[in-house]
Amino acid sequence: MMLLKEIAKVIGIAYEGPELEIKGMNTLLDALEHEISFVASSQYKADLENTKAAAVIVPLELITSVPESCMALPCEESYLKMAILSKYFTRPILDDKAPSPIIGKNSQISSKAHIENGAIIGDNCTILAGAYIGLHVRLGDNVTLHPNSSIYAYCEIGNDVIVHAGSVVGSDGFGFAHTKTGEHVKIHQNGNVVIEDDVEIGSNSTIDCAVFGSTMIKKGVKIDNLVQIGHNCVIGEYSIIVSQAGIAGSTTLGRNVVLGGQSAISGHLNIAPFTTFAGRSGATKNIKESGKTFAGFPLMEHRQWLRLQARIAKLLR
Amino acid sequence: MMLLKEIAKVIGIAYEGPELEIKGMNTLLDALEHEISFVASSQYKADLENTKAAAVIVPLELITSVPESCMALPCEESYLKMAILSKYFTRPILDDKAPSPIIGKNSQISSKAHIENGAIIGDNCTILAGAYIGLHVRLGDNVTLHPNSSIYAYCEIGNDVIVHAGSVVGSDGFGFAHTKTGEHVKIHQNGNVVIEDDVEIGSNSTIDCAVFGSTMIKKGVKIDNLVQIGHNCVIGEYSIIVSQAGIAGSTTLGRNVVLGGQSAISGHLNIAPFTTFAGRSGATKNIKESGKTFAGFPLMEHRQWLRLQARIAKLLR
Amino acid sequence: MMLLKEIAKVIGIAYEGPELEIKGMNTLLDALEHEISFVASSQYKADLENTKAAAVIVPLELITSVPESCMALPCEESYLKMAILSKYFTRPILDDKAPSPIIGKNSQISSKAHIENGAIIGDNCTILAGAYIGLHVRLGDNVTLHPNSSIYAYCEIGNDVIVHAGSVVGSDGFGFAHTKTGEHVKIHQNGNVVIEDDVEIGSNSTIDCAVFGSTMIKKGVKIDNLVQIGHNCVIGEYSIIVSQAGIAGSTTLGRNVVLGGQSAISGHLNIAPFTTFAGRSGATKNIKESGKTFAGFPLMEHRQWLRLQARIAKLLR
Repeated sequence: MMLLKEIAKVIGIAYEGPELEIKGMNTLLDALEHEISFVASSQYKADLENTKAAAVIVPLELITSVPESCMALPCEESYLKMAILSKYFTRPILDDKAPSPIIGKNSQISSKAHIENGAIIGDNCTILAGAYIGLHVRLGDNVTLHPNSSIYAYCEIGNDVIVHAGSVVGSDGFGFAHTKTGEHVKIHQNGNVVIEDDVEIGSNSTIDCAVFGSTMIKKGVKIDNLVQIGHNCVIGEYSIIVSQAGIAGSTTLGRNVVLGGQSAISGHLNIAPFTTFAGRSGATKNIKESGKTFAGFPLMEHRQWLRLQARIAKLLR
Repeated sequence: MMLLKEIAKVIGIAYEGPELEIKGMNTLLDALEHEISFVASSQYKADLENTKAAAVIVPLELITSVPESCMALPCEESYLKMAILSKYFTRPILDDKAPSPIIGKNSQISSKAHIENGAIIGDNCTILAGAYIGLHVRLGDNVTLHPNSSIYAYCEIGNDVIVHAGSVVGSDGFGFAHTKTGEHVKIHQNGNVVIEDDVEIGSNSTIDCAVFGSTMIKKGVKIDNLVQIGHNCVIGEYSIIVSQAGIAGSTTLGRNVVLGGQSAISGHLNIAPFTTFAGRSGATKNIKESGKTFAGFPLMEHRQWLRLQARIAKLLR
Repeated sequence: MMLLKEIAKVIGIAYEGPELEIKGMNTLLDALEHEISFVASSQYKADLENTKAAAVIVPLELITSVPESCMALPCEESYLKMAILSKYFTRPILDDKAPSPIIGKNSQISSKAHIENGAIIGDNCTILAGAYIGLHVRLGDNVTLHPNSSIYAYCEIGNDVIVHAGSVVGSDGFGFAHTKTGEHVKIHQNGNVVIEDDVEIGSNSTIDCAVFGSTMIKKGVKIDNLVQIGHNCVIGEYSIIVSQAGIAGSTTLGRNVVLGGQSAISGHLNIAPFTTFAGRSGATKNIKESGKTFAGFPLMEHRQWLRLQARIAKLLR
């Protein structure tokens, strides 16, 4: 909790309005009536007009779009100001006062695993040595955490999930605001990762938590080794992600998408269901039509890629 | 152990034959006389004709190739049925009744390492904090396991081996059968990884166990950081695999193969000895002639790749 | 400490000179007066002429360039001989006699983290379960080590540094000398990693220690997940390295370099400040002019790459 006056001080703004108590930070559309939000560009003007946030960090040119119910904190570099403020709304990762973990029936927990307070673990789980279960994590039934896997605080894992050795669920998304002199200010990541039932995650893969809300790994997804999934991604049901593939932040895959080994998808994209990406392919645009197979970087339909390789081979003659 | 009648029930087949006790599951050629096997396509007809398995899950059209000594379990989707059944033949990863680990002379084991039952560790080993040694693992002499490395159950490691921090040896191969509605059924991986003498494995690399049999890392192989080696691969003596390279399942490298950084090899290939792959190259076909250097994706000889780049550069004029 | 006579014996050379005590091994220019060095090619002739080393392993053809103050150990395969000898000058990674770790004020150390002797930890640090802090490591103030991260012996970490789960700082650089019969002899890595203030390292990334001296991660650098940084690299201030990018050994980045996802830089290069590499790009040459943006492999300026892709697309018509 923080007073709006204190917030204004932290981000270097004069504030003369009412003394509001702000309990959290969130996106324009998800902010509750005691939360603060921010807007960085006119692209989000409609969201700004509809926000329920108590206050908003806003560039001068958008100030007329702030709803009456919402206190405006007008400034330059609103994105940077949000990043500076995000530090004050981080959640704890350790809490002596949270209740002791609750462990379900028939769950085997190695004495060398570590479970933080507030965690709730279902029945028939197997938690091997070196596995880490963070503050307030929830695991369903029949979950296996292999050695030295790490589940960060606040993440939620469904039933029948396997996480192989060394994989990391819920590490901070890679988000920074930049100063004019080229320094980077961390945007503290306040979301989590939600993993649904029947998911398997290979060894040494990484799934970042959301900045706000949840990174989602939906039912039946299978992830291989050394895969990277960025913050706020949504991986559709039964998708398959082969080793060393990477998905940048805020990308949504439909169901049954297949990513070949070492392939990649840029951030903020939507990929239609049943899309297949060959190994090494790289997508930088939305895929709207479902069921197609792509290859190459830049990406093209697989049969076109084969034709292109034939043409390129001709260059050698 | 499972009765053949129970097996038939699990995979949804009517079975009226003799009550056989089945003790394991294996490939057609490796199955012993008390094991069950499977065949998914006519490509393996010759193997089927020569199997010693007690029983076989077989598509209807191959039923005439089943030897007399072998009970046929005819069905559709035999590969999927095998996956469903594989769950019943998994080995335990924890076993209270297995003997306590045996530790050789002069080996230093951190009190924060973890050694499961049945493990046998040689002389002069150094096992640092957070290292995990699974059930029935065998380590030779002079082995160093750096912090938070994980050796899964049943793996075998020779003498003078170094495994750096965070690396994972023996995690499950990435194998699934698929239902008609797009769900994935895990093929439980019953094999292990065998690492011969004088091997070094960098940090956060992953080597998957075999589905049956062993993934092999032969004598003197050197593996860098963040490398992926799929299930059932055989990495020939003195091969060098540079950082972020990946090898898909069931590929065999001859001796002294060199993989450059971020290169990749598809599954089920044979690579001749003394082959060199430049950084970023990607092989999708067998390499039969030894001693050549390749580059690019699609792969070509390195000198040809250089010529191609010159031609491509001309396109810009 | 080792007598020069013993050293000569280890590398198979007859030595008749004075009985010197050699206390370490180092590069020609960094070697102190009680250290041994080596030279493998005439490229380093000038360095050889200026070395202060007590002795040098030197090819026959360079023997006339050895300074008078320096004892020459002339031989064939001097690089291989150096590798063989490097084993005798490794530092310990465990030391019962080193002092107990020193922990600063208000630092929270999980009982399941592990801190080796000689480590010094600053104030207000948070060391989570499974984190490993090696022999003689130094951490500044406000450092967070997430679960199962590993900091190898002798590394130094500044203030306000975050290391996410599973990342490895200081694992051995990937360096080997090769025998005529294709075997690899480990060059033992005697350097460390130095991480300056305000650095953040994502999950499951790997940063190798230097062979001699230090791999440097300078102030304000931000590294994403699954990134590889080779031995003896210098990463300039405020550089950003996105997920799955890799930098080979001995490359120096200027300040504010940006590496996109899955990009790569070869070893022994210099990259000018404020250079940006698009995702998947691969640099194999020095970048001398600062502030440019590159793409592709082979690398070219980004606008040229866009033009090239347009030309390539035309091939399909």
